[in-house]
Amino acid sequence: MAAGKHFAALMSDRRVHINDVAMRDGLQIEAVFVPTEQKIAMVNALSQTGLSKIEVTSFTSPKAIPALRDAEQVMMEIARVPGVRYVALAPNMRGAQRALECRVDEINLVMSASETHNLANTGMTLAQSRKVLTDIIREARGRAAVNISISTAFGCPMEGHVAPETVYALGDWFASQGADGITLCDTTGMANPMQVAELADGLDQRWPGVELTLHFHNTRGMGLANVIAGLIAGIDRYDASLGGVGGCPYAPGATGNICTEDLVHMLDTMGVATGVDVDRLLVCAARLPAMLVHDIPGAVVRAGKSDSRYPPPANIEAIRARALARETV
Amino acid sequence: MAAGKHFAALMSDRRVHINDVAMRDGLQIEAVFVPTEQKIAMVNALSQTGLSKIEVTSFTSPKAIPALRDAEQVMMEIARVPGVRYVALAPNMRGAQRALECRVDEINLVMSASETHNLANTGMTLAQSRKVLTDIIREARGRAAVNISISTAFGCPMEGHVAPETVYALGDWFASQGADGITLCDTTGMANPMQVAELADGLDQRWPGVELTLHFHNTRGMGLANVIAGLIAGIDRYDASLGGVGGCPYAPGATGNICTEDLVHMLDTMGVATGVDVDRLLVCAARLPAMLVHDIPGAVVRAGKSDSRYPPPANIEAIRARALARETV
Repeated sequence: MAAGKHFAALMSDRRVHINDVAMRDGLQIEAVFVPTEQKIAMVNALSQTGLSKIEVTSFTSPKAIPALRDAEQVMMEIARVPGVRYVALAPNMRGAQRALECRVDEINLVMSASETHNLANTGMTLAQSRKVLTDIIREARGRAAVNISISTAFGCPMEGHVAPETVYALGDWFASQGADGITLCDTTGMANPMQVAELADGLDQRWPGVELTLHFHNTRGMGLANVIAGLIAGIDRYDASLGGVGGCPYAPGATGNICTEDLVHMLDTMGVATGVDVDRLLVCAARLPAMLVHDIPGAVVRAGKSDSRYPPPANIEAIRARALARETV
Repeated sequence: MAAGKHFAALMSDRRVHINDVAMRDGLQIEAVFVPTEQKIAMVNALSQTGLSKIEVTSFTSPKAIPALRDAEQVMMEIARVPGVRYVALAPNMRGAQRALECRVDEINLVMSASETHNLANTGMTLAQSRKVLTDIIREARGRAAVNISISTAFGCPMEGHVAPETVYALGDWFASQGADGITLCDTTGMANPMQVAELADGLDQRWPGVELTLHFHNTRGMGLANVIAGLIAGIDRYDASLGGVGGCPYAPGATGNICTEDLVHMLDTMGVATGVDVDRLLVCAARLPAMLVHDIPGAVVRAGKSDSRYPPPANIEAIRARALARETV
């Protein structure tokens, strides 16, 4: 079978699950405080789109990230829709306990694969993060699922190359400790499709029963190309953010996450099922610029879907008549 | 072999050829007239980057596209570098004759796969375009190579779906008439990776000896994902434009071509050879905003290459000391 047909076969009968991280990854870097009721309304709107997960907020210190100081209120007041998993990030045990008190469905914990980034991002050494995250997995058992996001899994903006073995060893540890999910994060948009295909290949067999997610940024324009490589490698879960907002406050030069509605649009056009209604997503995305008071990187919200039709020029029949008249000369 | 490894094997030992179309596709929609000496300087700079082809200008009516009214002067005064093919677009026989008088290496001819778009873009019916382009292939024989660009090959913004059979039949005709190259153009960014893999699969066998090129726009963010699909299908030639500038004046909502330096950067990081020096390209791209008096869509020129290194926070050792001090409590 030719390679193109082989690719098409590989993409058929797939079901992709999408976790929207805009309300956490997007809002945490905003200078303005988005009013709590607007956050709740946006999560409620996103709940109606068919997303598998929504990362609602982060139970971080209100002093560190004032933009998310209303984490409790948002998590308690959203209208939870059955079938949607409501996730919150927790940077430490205190945050995890706050999240558990709010009955989150899933806690997302973060540590980097590189020590310099981990120190800058979490204030902990790798050994300390590993211990804290392991303790939180135990604490949450029976109360909420736990996902481990491994930052800088595809490279560190400060240390450079990150060895795949480092990423695998971290994943092995957390899989053995009962993590429900592991996300490999390209925190600063360094990943390329070759690297993604190679790093992600066979992970479903390495960590059986663990939900595997890939998290890309579109920093160098490769975001959706990396998703194609991830799909080839067999990964069916992706983080993305509405409008493509987000970034990493500790990663210079980083731009937004891959854009949720652009991702769903691409998968829709490919015939890959996501369960997400792209039109409803586009309505949500169109509300973001007013909420954030700045433009958003998403492409489809500006260009329209690829099945958009435009009228021909008003004088098309005159053009045709002129063309045919030349014929008879 | 697992699919990720299979993909990696498919990408190894590839040599991709890139045709930069910024000076034609990018400039033709600009309101301002870029001074002739600036155009020549830019082509000369691009000639030093390792690009396989440069589409230098269009021999169109100066009234229709005043931005390119200096086509003759630009084509005659650039410093041609051996190994680089200098291409010009010609919309009709008159334009082709002007291009031949300027001793272009290759004439690029355009017709759409859909009649409405072809009428709007060229003022001719499909049958008329087919005849004119065939006549030009004969006229150019022995004097310049001829490439046929088939617009709307992946869908028409006015008519919608374009049947693959229509595209194949057009290509069959021009291959039989001695075209040296055929480019399938996603004129308005409607293509998706599944469609690309399926449409392009096996074309090298269908049109043996004909150089096959794919031309994508990043309108819905899928540009580089479509290149990955094209590579999977075996296509090694791509149009792209410096800075991602360009568009189609007759395609509402269209945004720029895929960005040359972002494409080369992706292929570099994947280990796919292009012969292009991305650093020199980035220097050229950085000059575009001043030349065009507007911002450009390219990502890498803003974010830096993915191997860029950033210093850790200035207080990283204090962070580490604080972290380790907690340990001993």
